[in-house]
Amino acid sequence: MEKYEQRGVSAGKEEVHAAVKDLYHGLYPKAFCKIYPDYMGGDESYCNVMSADGSGTKSILAYLYWKETGDVSVWKGIAQDAMVMNLDDLLCIGATNQFLYTSIINRNKHLITGEVIAAIIQGGQEFIDKMNNLGIRINLMGGETADLGDCVRTTTVDAAMTVRMKKNDLVLTQNIKPGNVIIGFASYGQATYEDEYNSGISSNGLTSARHDLLHNSYATKYPETFDAVIDKSLVYSGSKKLTDALEGTPLNIGKALLSPTRTYLPIMKQVLEELPAQINGLVNCTGGAHTKVLHYIEGLRIVKTHLLPVPPIFNLIQQESKTSWKEMYKVLNCGTRLELYTDAKNASLIIDVAQAYGVSAQVIGHVEASKKNEVVVKSQHGEFVYN
Amino acid sequence: MEKYEQRGVSAGKEEVHAAVKDLYHGLYPKAFCKIYPDYMGGDESYCNVMSADGSGTKSILAYLYWKETGDVSVWKGIAQDAMVMNLDDLLCIGATNQFLYTSIINRNKHLITGEVIAAIIQGGQEFIDKMNNLGIRINLMGGETADLGDCVRTTTVDAAMTVRMKKNDLVLTQNIKPGNVIIGFASYGQATYEDEYNSGISSNGLTSARHDLLHNSYATKYPETFDAVIDKSLVYSGSKKLTDALEGTPLNIGKALLSPTRTYLPIMKQVLEELPAQINGLVNCTGGAHTKVLHYIEGLRIVKTHLLPVPPIFNLIQQESKTSWKEMYKVLNCGTRLELYTDAKNASLIIDVAQAYGVSAQVIGHVEASKKNEVVVKSQHGEFVYN
Repeated sequence: MEKYEQRGVSAGKEEVHAAVKDLYHGLYPKAFCKIYPDYMGGDESYCNVMSADGSGTKSILAYLYWKETGDVSVWKGIAQDAMVMNLDDLLCIGATNQFLYTSIINRNKHLITGEVIAAIIQGGQEFIDKMNNLGIRINLMGGETADLGDCVRTTTVDAAMTVRMKKNDLVLTQNIKPGNVIIGFASYGQATYEDEYNSGISSNGLTSARHDLLHNSYATKYPETFDAVIDKSLVYSGSKKLTDALEGTPLNIGKALLSPTRTYLPIMKQVLEELPAQINGLVNCTGGAHTKVLHYIEGLRIVKTHLLPVPPIFNLIQQESKTSWKEMYKVLNCGTRLELYTDAKNASLIIDVAQAYGVSAQVIGHVEASKKNEVVVKSQHGEFVYN
Repeated sequence: MEKYEQRGVSAGKEEVHAAVKDLYHGLYPKAFCKIYPDYMGGDESYCNVMSADGSGTKSILAYLYWKETGDVSVWKGIAQDAMVMNLDDLLCIGATNQFLYTSIINRNKHLITGEVIAAIIQGGQEFIDKMNNLGIRINLMGGETADLGDCVRTTTVDAAMTVRMKKNDLVLTQNIKPGNVIIGFASYGQATYEDEYNSGISSNGLTSARHDLLHNSYATKYPETFDAVIDKSLVYSGSKKLTDALEGTPLNIGKALLSPTRTYLPIMKQVLEELPAQINGLVNCTGGAHTKVLHYIEGLRIVKTHLLPVPPIFNLIQQESKTSWKEMYKVLNCGTRLELYTDAKNASLIIDVAQAYGVSAQVIGHVEASKKNEVVVKSQHGEFVYN
């Protein structure tokens, strides 16, 4: 996707991978997160993991929505985005409790007021409280808010998380094997632990979605929300206003793009408790989306034949951007975000747990032996092969 | 300092303090870092701490120097800056080993190349290796490099660190008491574990220093290095080029502003081993500089009468910016960065350890009982009272 590169986003992060290739990659090199010895406790049966990630350019959508409508509460979701981007990666190695969390906010103080900072911090605390009520402890360990207007146009919101786990509790993608079924969990709808309908967008692909969907009038009004070197034809090149309704949902387009990233922690905590040592792999389909699993497998073909329906926000992005569906499934979750690999016999229990939390889930495919690693997506929009 | 505010920097962070005032502040509210129960191990005699901080706008100086001279190696120091800003804060509660570290780099991919990312990552690894050779283990636990050109003009480089410590090993500023002497450690010179002369600048006050020292030609040439809303008279309003010599040092001004933040870990690890439970307090004079200690004391007057000599970089900043010396000591370390509070009898041993590592140290003052908290600085530039 050439537009991607021109907008200064690298889908594949090749440069970054090259820069880190000689570093130590942990105890299980093909794991979803890098897993390290128990430096904290010196116990052979434990391990330590840290994660760092943030809300990316989704903060710009919060900025636009706040400036246009005066609704400062959208910043609360940005805190959740930054946290869940880490939590659900850690979830993929089986971590479901006792997270240590710190936040890093870099802001342009001329534009991002104290009221915004307060909303971000309050949003983080509300999410922590909500998870705590579901038995999931996230410990806020302080954070840093820095005024860096010469570095940052508006703001960035990042988070780091640390966990210490028993090795026995690890879920390791290296255990994905031929014969496994794949259970997919919906990114959209309203979970019992969510306050409103979730579009399913999460925190990926939002640089493209923002520019492809939104009307060019935002370019003139908010030059602080994009890099001036980007070709003008690629800046806010869509037809939509933030307050336009998103058909088929109770949200407007702004709120749909700002749906806080769903966490699957409450569901997966229960699943991992009920089926210990029976989950072969978990993959959070963020960057790389339905091809992300390719990083973690060896000699396997991943066949996805029954993905969940594509919810409205992704259809709109596809229509406005004219992105091919092959590309769509590579960049965006398109409705199915978390993948769980297990034996077929476990499927109905897992699906029942998800549904009890109001989250659609179904068997979306299976795993085959293969000479070369590949992902096959057979969707309503065609059949695509990735390798 | 009104210029401070106009440049979008808040010296005092009042807004941030207001936003977090209702959050849990840990086991020892007046400690230098927030200290939490041992969520990681569940052991009453241990505690957990996380720190998050970064190189701030110092990355812009690396960008300017790299663009002007082609020397990509200056980015290595930025990695050290981001790490040491955390490490030396954690040092102030007595943490000297087994740090878990993750890095967060947000870049504008149009400007910050893969070569720069590689230099930052390599610089981090070289610093880790150097500390490891001195018995200080810093464990790189992965990190995130995000392409956020719509958010970030050039780049930000942040770090988060986690430690688990025995409560018995904690150094708590609440133990600072009347009669303590203050030992100050030089920020400048060349420690045995540094590769070249260090200007002493660390990673604070660099938005002001950059604009006050550097020549206006940089404004035209590098508009990506400042916020266009800042009044033009405050942007690169000095007379210096990055490659101008800094008199009295072996460095040019660019390299002096880019001196990697010194760590005192090797010194303090030995001091804390030789004098267990005898250090009443440690204060890293970063933001707030010589007034920083005011956050941690109750009913004390901190009297500093024999600060180390002010090294050339700070004299130059003062001359070019016309900042009052009272303000200088409040914003910049001015040559003395780490403060250690202890009984007079321990002073000579501590000073000897520092000098063995090539770092000047001396008794710079003492602590008195006082109805109101205050800091008195009696310097070569006058006597100043802060409260």
